[in-house]
Amino acid sequence: MSQTCVQRTQTALQNIAAAGDEGARIFTKVYTESAHAEAVAADARAALGISLSPLDGRIVSIKDLFDVAGEATTAGSKVMRDAPVAAQDAVVVQRLRAAGAVIIGKTNMTEFAFSGIGINPHYGTPGNAKDVNCIPGGSSSGAGVAVARGMCEIAIGSDTGGSVRIPSALNGVTGFKPTQGRVTREGAFPLSYSLDTVGPLAANVLDCAKADSVLAGEKWVPLQARRLEGLRIGIPRGLLFTQADEAVLLAFEQALQRLGNRGVKLIDADLDVLIAAPFQLQEAGTLIACEAAQIHQALFASGKDAQLDGLVKARITRGQTIPASHYVAVQQARGQLQKAFDAAIADFDLLILPTVPVVAPLIKSLEDADAFNRTNLLVLRNPSVFNFYDVPAASLPLPRAASELPVGLMVVGKRGQDRNLLELAHCLGTTVSGSSSG
Amino acid sequence: MSQTCVQRTQTALQNIAAAGDEGARIFTKVYTESAHAEAVAADARAALGISLSPLDGRIVSIKDLFDVAGEATTAGSKVMRDAPVAAQDAVVVQRLRAAGAVIIGKTNMTEFAFSGIGINPHYGTPGNAKDVNCIPGGSSSGAGVAVARGMCEIAIGSDTGGSVRIPSALNGVTGFKPTQGRVTREGAFPLSYSLDTVGPLAANVLDCAKADSVLAGEKWVPLQARRLEGLRIGIPRGLLFTQADEAVLLAFEQALQRLGNRGVKLIDADLDVLIAAPFQLQEAGTLIACEAAQIHQALFASGKDAQLDGLVKARITRGQTIPASHYVAVQQARGQLQKAFDAAIADFDLLILPTVPVVAPLIKSLEDADAFNRTNLLVLRNPSVFNFYDVPAASLPLPRAASELPVGLMVVGKRGQDRNLLELAHCLGTTVSGSSSG
Repeated sequence: MSQTCVQRTQTALQNIAAAGDEGARIFTKVYTESAHAEAVAADARAALGISLSPLDGRIVSIKDLFDVAGEATTAGSKVMRDAPVAAQDAVVVQRLRAAGAVIIGKTNMTEFAFSGIGINPHYGTPGNAKDVNCIPGGSSSGAGVAVARGMCEIAIGSDTGGSVRIPSALNGVTGFKPTQGRVTREGAFPLSYSLDTVGPLAANVLDCAKADSVLAGEKWVPLQARRLEGLRIGIPRGLLFTQADEAVLLAFEQALQRLGNRGVKLIDADLDVLIAAPFQLQEAGTLIACEAAQIHQALFASGKDAQLDGLVKARITRGQTIPASHYVAVQQARGQLQKAFDAAIADFDLLILPTVPVVAPLIKSLEDADAFNRTNLLVLRNPSVFNFYDVPAASLPLPRAASELPVGLMVVGKRGQDRNLLELAHCLGTTVSGSSSG
Repeated sequence: MSQTCVQRTQTALQNIAAAGDEGARIFTKVYTESAHAEAVAADARAALGISLSPLDGRIVSIKDLFDVAGEATTAGSKVMRDAPVAAQDAVVVQRLRAAGAVIIGKTNMTEFAFSGIGINPHYGTPGNAKDVNCIPGGSSSGAGVAVARGMCEIAIGSDTGGSVRIPSALNGVTGFKPTQGRVTREGAFPLSYSLDTVGPLAANVLDCAKADSVLAGEKWVPLQARRLEGLRIGIPRGLLFTQADEAVLLAFEQALQRLGNRGVKLIDADLDVLIAAPFQLQEAGTLIACEAAQIHQALFASGKDAQLDGLVKARITRGQTIPASHYVAVQQARGQLQKAFDAAIADFDLLILPTVPVVAPLIKSLEDADAFNRTNLLVLRNPSVFNFYDVPAASLPLPRAASELPVGLMVVGKRGQDRNLLELAHCLGTTVSGSSSG
């Protein structure tokens, strides 16, 4: 990077300011002064040849569900504005600061991280980076738009059913959801204890990998170059390819062609029984609904639930009547299904599929609750399968004409093999984007 | 051992046969022929100087909730008599066989492992080894009696709220409950996914440690001798010392005196807030109730629940109406409380307290449901705290006159430090029993 950190920070702040009201819908908070001070410090270190981490001097935003000491964590909800302020930074925020990152602000999100759409009646809905009339995707809505619009270089989001990968796909950036145990959630407002993960959005896989190493508290080891030739990639055609836009399927097939040209073995993977299982299993109530009912119990007891987004409230309310025996049954079945899934994908290096089967719909097309719910289920469908199976997954932007809405390619790895997925995704990313002739 | 394995097996089989109807209440199944064949094989190995494990040629019983290939696992219930037969041995049974153990039979238990009393209306109630009119303790009722009456050398039980330690204490033998993750539960009929553990009962800690190493799939390493002098032992006086028999308190104080004489530092540990927490937290429903409601869902759907012990049925029924949000709340709080408990006991090498606050009551004194429930809660009270906190614990027999009912001393260690606990308990066991002058 030829620019100083201070210069890049200024540019990011200018991009936020220049967006006017839209900037205020993307960021719920901008740390203008502290970001500048952090940038000055980073430049001073750089001048001395000191680097704290691969994120030293990188401009990072955090989703508004991570605690920052002295601030109320709103988690996208109006009712949280007056919550007690956090006593300390979330652990990932501590790690970002220790890594020398410039923390530029907090990004907007769906209330309590519900919904993959990104509409927020309390703090406004950030428009899609490509077309402000379209949805940003959620729940890390501001995160996806902020990276795409140059308001930060890396955004830290959370992903429970696709909340990092959906905004990545819909805004044309790269996002990574780790295996759940990899990154601590201490100090992050929860949506689901069983499914929540913390992951980055950025311009490319390399930046995601660098951010992931800091979030995980690991020493950075450069990504190794990997050979595409002979790689066995499974394509789970079937359920997850239904209700798809032509544009998405076309971009996906073009990506396959590029991969095939590079000697990748593309193999149809018949996983529909295992892919359908999480949905069937949770028809009478989801893990998220059960856990959210507990998380928001005090809120409902206080009567403040009247102030919630009606769609969010409805989802929490549904969880309140699910019996414990159902929750226990889902958890037990999940353990068994995970073993079956691990065995079913053992023979592949990766799975690939469209991250989201559609391009970003118009915000106003989702004003009707039925349309909203239908579209919400559709955008969450593909990503959420891999939260249930707790395997790492990334979304990579596919090549699109300048006028076209973005499409994402989801790359899925094996539980706990996060670095392996990142290395392969890095290699795939340059190939499918056409930015490298190989 | 001067006797051959065949001789010892014969003696054990004779002890079972000589007990007549009582033997049939202690063992639900006796493997006369296969035990003899296994004993012959063990003697043949011994003659060649071959030993498969520290349990080679040891006479072992298994609680009737471990799968044995080709048999229905009854788990103490009449309704399970016609259950499909197990396709394979439970993993711990596989390990016992591979270790060269002589598996002499399956021991009786409380229906579905509910209750610490040991009364079973379906298969009969084994009488206490000291006085058949008194309860055996449960749920591993037959296991405790079988060891005490020389019907096996080692009994494999399960412990969810005290089911190994209670019958150990009430029958005057030694029992060990490991940290939950130490021994696989694959092929064991569950009571509670969150709390179930698999552990041995035997004449002493050394045999428990040997059995534990086989159950855990670890190579046997002899227990190291440990110094008692300077050991810091916490005594959680308070809640767990209430409603206690004078005889129990007296035996406990005598044990303290012996330990004090050996230079052990005996320190009052004020843990009552953490000890009360699991009970308060689960007032509106226990983890066991929630999980049992799920485990027995099909049974209730089939209408066969009418055949259950009424007290067992009532407990499962209560679990069916607990909301998932309560279960999630208990699990989350448990995680936090475990951290607090770990911190609170960090400064001690061990905790010690009476395993059960009373000696075995008369069976007929518990015919009234209220008396049964009250006594059941009392005998489970002390042991269950350490299932909730998931720390290893053993029960050691305290010295008693020949005419007196047994009293157990519970020794509690730290999560995952099972071997450390066993070494210290081994050392303590010889001291408190007075069998060593030190």
